[in-house]
Amino acid sequence: MKKKSLLFLVAVAMFTTGSYASNPDSMVVSKIYEEVLGNGKVYENLHYLCKNIGPRLSGSANAQNAVEWTRSLMESYGFDRVYLQEVMVPHWERGAKEKAWFATGGKKINVEIAALGGSVATSEKGIETTIIEVFNFDQLKELGEEKIKGKIVFFNRPMNPKTLHTFNAYGAAVNQRVQGAIEAAKYGAIGVIVRSMTTKIDEFPHTGTMRYDEKLTKIPAAAISTKDANSLSAALKTDPSLKFFYQMNCKTLPDVLSYNVIGEIKGSEQPEKIITVGGHLDSWDLAEGAHDDGAGTMQSVEVLRTIKALGIKPKHTVRAVMFMNEENGTKGGLKYAENAKVTNEQHYAAIESDSGGLTPRGFSIDASTEVVNRIMSWSPIFDEYGLKEIGGGGGAGSDIGPLKSLGTALFGFRPDSQRYFDYHHAKTDVFENVNERELKLGAAAMATLVYLIDQNGLN
Amino acid sequence: MKKKSLLFLVAVAMFTTGSYASNPDSMVVSKIYEEVLGNGKVYENLHYLCKNIGPRLSGSANAQNAVEWTRSLMESYGFDRVYLQEVMVPHWERGAKEKAWFATGGKKINVEIAALGGSVATSEKGIETTIIEVFNFDQLKELGEEKIKGKIVFFNRPMNPKTLHTFNAYGAAVNQRVQGAIEAAKYGAIGVIVRSMTTKIDEFPHTGTMRYDEKLTKIPAAAISTKDANSLSAALKTDPSLKFFYQMNCKTLPDVLSYNVIGEIKGSEQPEKIITVGGHLDSWDLAEGAHDDGAGTMQSVEVLRTIKALGIKPKHTVRAVMFMNEENGTKGGLKYAENAKVTNEQHYAAIESDSGGLTPRGFSIDASTEVVNRIMSWSPIFDEYGLKEIGGGGGAGSDIGPLKSLGTALFGFRPDSQRYFDYHHAKTDVFENVNERELKLGAAAMATLVYLIDQNGLN
Repeated sequence: MKKKSLLFLVAVAMFTTGSYASNPDSMVVSKIYEEVLGNGKVYENLHYLCKNIGPRLSGSANAQNAVEWTRSLMESYGFDRVYLQEVMVPHWERGAKEKAWFATGGKKINVEIAALGGSVATSEKGIETTIIEVFNFDQLKELGEEKIKGKIVFFNRPMNPKTLHTFNAYGAAVNQRVQGAIEAAKYGAIGVIVRSMTTKIDEFPHTGTMRYDEKLTKIPAAAISTKDANSLSAALKTDPSLKFFYQMNCKTLPDVLSYNVIGEIKGSEQPEKIITVGGHLDSWDLAEGAHDDGAGTMQSVEVLRTIKALGIKPKHTVRAVMFMNEENGTKGGLKYAENAKVTNEQHYAAIESDSGGLTPRGFSIDASTEVVNRIMSWSPIFDEYGLKEIGGGGGAGSDIGPLKSLGTALFGFRPDSQRYFDYHHAKTDVFENVNERELKLGAAAMATLVYLIDQNGLN
Repeated sequence: MKKKSLLFLVAVAMFTTGSYASNPDSMVVSKIYEEVLGNGKVYENLHYLCKNIGPRLSGSANAQNAVEWTRSLMESYGFDRVYLQEVMVPHWERGAKEKAWFATGGKKINVEIAALGGSVATSEKGIETTIIEVFNFDQLKELGEEKIKGKIVFFNRPMNPKTLHTFNAYGAAVNQRVQGAIEAAKYGAIGVIVRSMTTKIDEFPHTGTMRYDEKLTKIPAAAISTKDANSLSAALKTDPSLKFFYQMNCKTLPDVLSYNVIGEIKGSEQPEKIITVGGHLDSWDLAEGAHDDGAGTMQSVEVLRTIKALGIKPKHTVRAVMFMNEENGTKGGLKYAENAKVTNEQHYAAIESDSGGLTPRGFSIDASTEVVNRIMSWSPIFDEYGLKEIGGGGGAGSDIGPLKSLGTALFGFRPDSQRYFDYHHAKTDVFENVNERELKLGAAAMATLVYLIDQNGLN
């Protein structure tokens, strides 16, 4: 495409500036976008978090570094109050890199696996036995103890590429990862290998949280790359009795004291009412947690930085919260709500960004119909910025979820979902896979929602 | 983010399935999306075009290879008719890689430049002289011949990062590239260096078309990377008389016979009325032309492949057209319309994809108000697939533009624009920077528009 695009520009301008352009809110929102796009710090802050700190699983030294750095970052912006909130978090470590292969036709074929978060290790010698491919728990039940006992179960149901919204495809496949070890253990399996949760066919295993049932044997569980899942599946078709080997060194250590990191700008009219905007500071250990959820935390800081930079005096207190331990416990989110109850804080609204630093599409709303209608009444402004998927129903995010019992109106920032699971929980979730403009637009969208709620109220 | 997303999924489902779900059109559209997302060939075809053919500037051997391969590709899909349409195209070659540096404080600093398409070469020895930074043509005029004569002009107005739609930022900066050599020559400049058309700060020059005025001296024109543009600008502040050197080896050869490549499925009711869907097969020489416009061509083929795969019998004739020479002449687009006039073809509608293989946002419409209203009446279907930016006004695309004089209704496929200019006309426009799902969704969106127009008509 070349200069003919000029013609289209007129059309875009027509789409995006309407009668709302002269509305005072619309003018402030325009300044919010200009500030974030023109002077925004969210991209360079994410760079620091990813490259100077890196992976930051709960309980790790890096997680503590992230706590200290984000505190000093928010202090450097001169927010009215920056503080830490204590929370005990799980501490699981992967240990030395896993080893895995399968043997067929006299050949050993190495495969890429990664222990699921919270898994027990194998013995030092590893596990080597036959492996049985299944696609769902019903099939497992049909096979029963007779066919499963003493074997490894290979859960290979893919995220459905035909599903438009990738989160739906994820939701329809992820029980294999979360519940797979429990279901397989019921029938005497001695290990679980789960196809990675992504539609992309590549060599990177995607880790993620999993559960055990204390009444059942805890069996070692790992994710296998989609490419290797396909190879293994193909090999099993010709050699169903092939042997699979894996060895993992992960362990769970005692819980560790960690922190939610909180920055706030005091409200000028109703300081006792709080609008929270947040993401989670912890990440899985395999990568930099750039999209999940460095993006959300740095966007939340950017919301407050932008408010301050523009000299906006919010009526309500606005807080940026870096929640700790979303990935394997949600202890930070639970603690934040628990503390709010104990201290009688009034949480007016909360917005979570934990779906990646991708082009904004809108917000999900978990609140009363009145609140949904109120938010929808601002659609002319949202429309100007491509925020066209705004609606009620469903949840908003796991860290702010516990605030629901306080009557808080909850909002989930919803960017385009197409690329998210290419990187999610895998080695590829690095800074280089975040686009500067997309990340910034997310921060601007969140600041816009905070601003409109703060100025106009929810009823 | 982890499994809590399940809650959100319900919300998404609510957004995306409405009463339209039982509409027969809606059911076909759902099948279109499933076919493209589940069995689509557009990604692997783009891989072939990028990796097995590569850069394909008009007149090059690669462009001819692309013509032959896309013809055989469409033949392999069994379209009713596949043929070539002759068109004479310009033939410009870059020659050996350009060299450039500036000297200040006793040091030579190498910079990355790329000749603009159509530029004349420097002499073999290159040009070395002082360079003067300007930001617009008014400033050039103010400086006048006295200050400009014998110098190189450095156009350094950036694409404005604060502009929401990147095509608008491009439109507001690109006259420096297109007209810069003409404007500078008016005042006796001997060369032109233009800041690359991107908001990203990196080391890759972005080429693109430029013009000369036959009545003025043709001076050599090159794009400089944004990173080097910033360095040069900073150096000029402390050393305004620094010397800039560049040497380029490009040349214009005689015009070459080339082709538009056309595949069609004959209409079952009104075969004489044609719906065209297309992109351009040529690309700049610096990269693989993955987004610009391998994506659009392979999406156009995919539209016809999908129609055939689903057993849809279109009422109108549906054509996929790979236009030749969009980048530096638009000779293919002009020829296609000219031929339509000569042979009295009835062109009912035309859709162009030339804005990248990125997540679909909607369509621009260049047609009567009646047509716009007709298209808008299908919004409930488009909405289900995130196609929410649909509207009239402005142009649709440069290759289909010439059909306007035939009364054809024109449509431009509009994906998200945020990442497009990171890659546009630069070395980075490669297959690896195209996301499979985003590319496929574009093809599905285009097939949907073709299907709805074909089945329901435009009035």
